[in-house]
Amino acid sequence: MKLFVVGLGPGGAEQITPRAMAVLNQCDVIAGYTVYIDLIRELFPGKRLLDTPMKQEEKRCRLAIEEALSGNTVALVSSGDAGVYGMAGIMYETAREFPEIEIEVVAGITAACSGGALLGAPLSHDFAVISLSDLLTPWEKIEARLQAAAQADFVICLYNPASKKRSDYLARASEIIMRFQSGDLPAGIVRNIGREDESWQVTTLAALREIPVDMFTTVMIGNSQTRIIRGKMVTPRGYRYEET
Amino acid sequence: MKLFVVGLGPGGAEQITPRAMAVLNQCDVIAGYTVYIDLIRELFPGKRLLDTPMKQEEKRCRLAIEEALSGNTVALVSSGDAGVYGMAGIMYETAREFPEIEIEVVAGITAACSGGALLGAPLSHDFAVISLSDLLTPWEKIEARLQAAAQADFVICLYNPASKKRSDYLARASEIIMRFQSGDLPAGIVRNIGREDESWQVTTLAALREIPVDMFTTVMIGNSQTRIIRGKMVTPRGYRYEET
Repeated sequence: MKLFVVGLGPGGAEQITPRAMAVLNQCDVIAGYTVYIDLIRELFPGKRLLDTPMKQEEKRCRLAIEEALSGNTVALVSSGDAGVYGMAGIMYETAREFPEIEIEVVAGITAACSGGALLGAPLSHDFAVISLSDLLTPWEKIEARLQAAAQADFVICLYNPASKKRSDYLARASEIIMRFQSGDLPAGIVRNIGREDESWQVTTLAALREIPVDMFTTVMIGNSQTRIIRGKMVTPRGYRYEET
Repeated sequence: MKLFVVGLGPGGAEQITPRAMAVLNQCDVIAGYTVYIDLIRELFPGKRLLDTPMKQEEKRCRLAIEEALSGNTVALVSSGDAGVYGMAGIMYETAREFPEIEIEVVAGITAACSGGALLGAPLSHDFAVISLSDLLTPWEKIEARLQAAAQADFVICLYNPASKKRSDYLARASEIIMRFQSGDLPAGIVRNIGREDESWQVTTLAALREIPVDMFTTVMIGNSQTRIIRGKMVTPRGYRYEET
C-alpha cells in the first residue's frame, strides 16, 4: 500500500516536475484541498479526485489513508513543496497507526524559490522562512523568530502573511524586524505565484506596513547587503563579495 | 537579448520542471559548472554547451553575457534552485553594465526541499537555511546565524557543510547549536540528492559531530518539536498541534 505526498509547485502544469506527474499519473486517487484539486483537474481526466475544504488537513489525511487501506494507490497533493508548511508532516503523524502504508514525499518548488525567481535573486545568501499564521503557533514564538532572524541579518521569507482574521500581522512583523534592520531594506511581495493573475512588487521593509496582503501572498525581506538592481532584489553571496 | 538563469533541481531529468526544460530547449547556448553540464549533456544532443570549473562563477557569468551580446539566447544553469546560493545573484551583479540583456530566473527544487522529502517532513515549520562556506562570509557571521537560529528553535538546513579545506565545520556548527538545543534533536544527512548514489541517514545533532560530509551533502537539524516517525524526521506544524 503506497501513499504519496506530492508538491505541485506554485501552480500550473509547467512547474510540476516529471517525477510528480509520473506519480500522479500512476495513482488511482488524488486527494487535496479543493483549490489545488481544481487547479489540476483538467490534467487528469477520468481520475478519481477527492477534495476537502481548507483547514480540514487531518480529515484530508484520513481520507487518503482510507483509500490506501482499501487497496488504492493514493496521492495527497500540496501546493508548493509538500514539506514546507505542506501536508507531508501531518500525513506522517496521521498515518502513525498504519505502518502497513508506505509513505513517500515528492518535492515541489516552494514559494520562497518561485517567488524569489520573480523578485530577482533575494535568496543568494542565508535565509529564514517564517509563517505568520498563529493558528498552531503562539504569536510570541513567531515574534521571537522574527527578532532572531532580523538580528542575525538573515534574508526573511514570510509565508501566510495574513488571513481574514489577521490583517495587520505583516505590519506587526515589519515593525519587529525594523527594531534591528533599516526600514529602507529592499523587500518584495509576490501574489498568486504561477497563476494567471501572478504579480510582484519590489518595495521597502517600512512600506510593507501599508501594503495589503492575503493568504496567496509571499513576502521577502532582504538582508543588510541586499540591493536593488534593475528593479529587482539581489542579495550578494557574501560579505566579501566586492573584493573577489 | 535574453539570458535565463535556470535551476535544474537536485539532478536527473525527472526533477527538472517543464518550464525549465522548455527554456533550455529554446536556448542556443547552455553554460554552467562542468559537473552540472555533464549531468544534462545527454538531454540536449547537438546543443552548444559551455562549461567552466568550480569557483569560476564570475567568469561563467561573463561567458554567458558574451554569448547573449553576440545575439544568442543563453541559459546559465545552477543545480537546485537558481536563487538559493545559486547563480542568479551573481548574474544580476555581473550583468549590471549590460541593461540591454534581459534576465529571467527560472526556479528549481532546492536541496532543502529535495533533501527534506527524503528525510520525511523536517520543514513543516519555520526553518533557517545557512551555508557553512566561509569563502565569502566571515565565520563569525555564520556562527552568529547558527546561534540565532538555534536559540529561536528554527529547524536548520545547512548547505555546503564541508569542503577539503573545511572538514571540521559541521562539527563546529553542531557544537554551536548544542549550546541552545539538546544533542538528542533529530538530525538528517542527505548525500548526492537525485543522483545514482543518493543516500540519506537520520541521526542526532550530537552525532553529526562525527559524521564525515562533503560538498554534495545537505544537513538537516530538527527543532525542539521534531520527532522520529518510521525512522524519518517529522516536524509538527505548530506548538499546539497535539490539541487540535
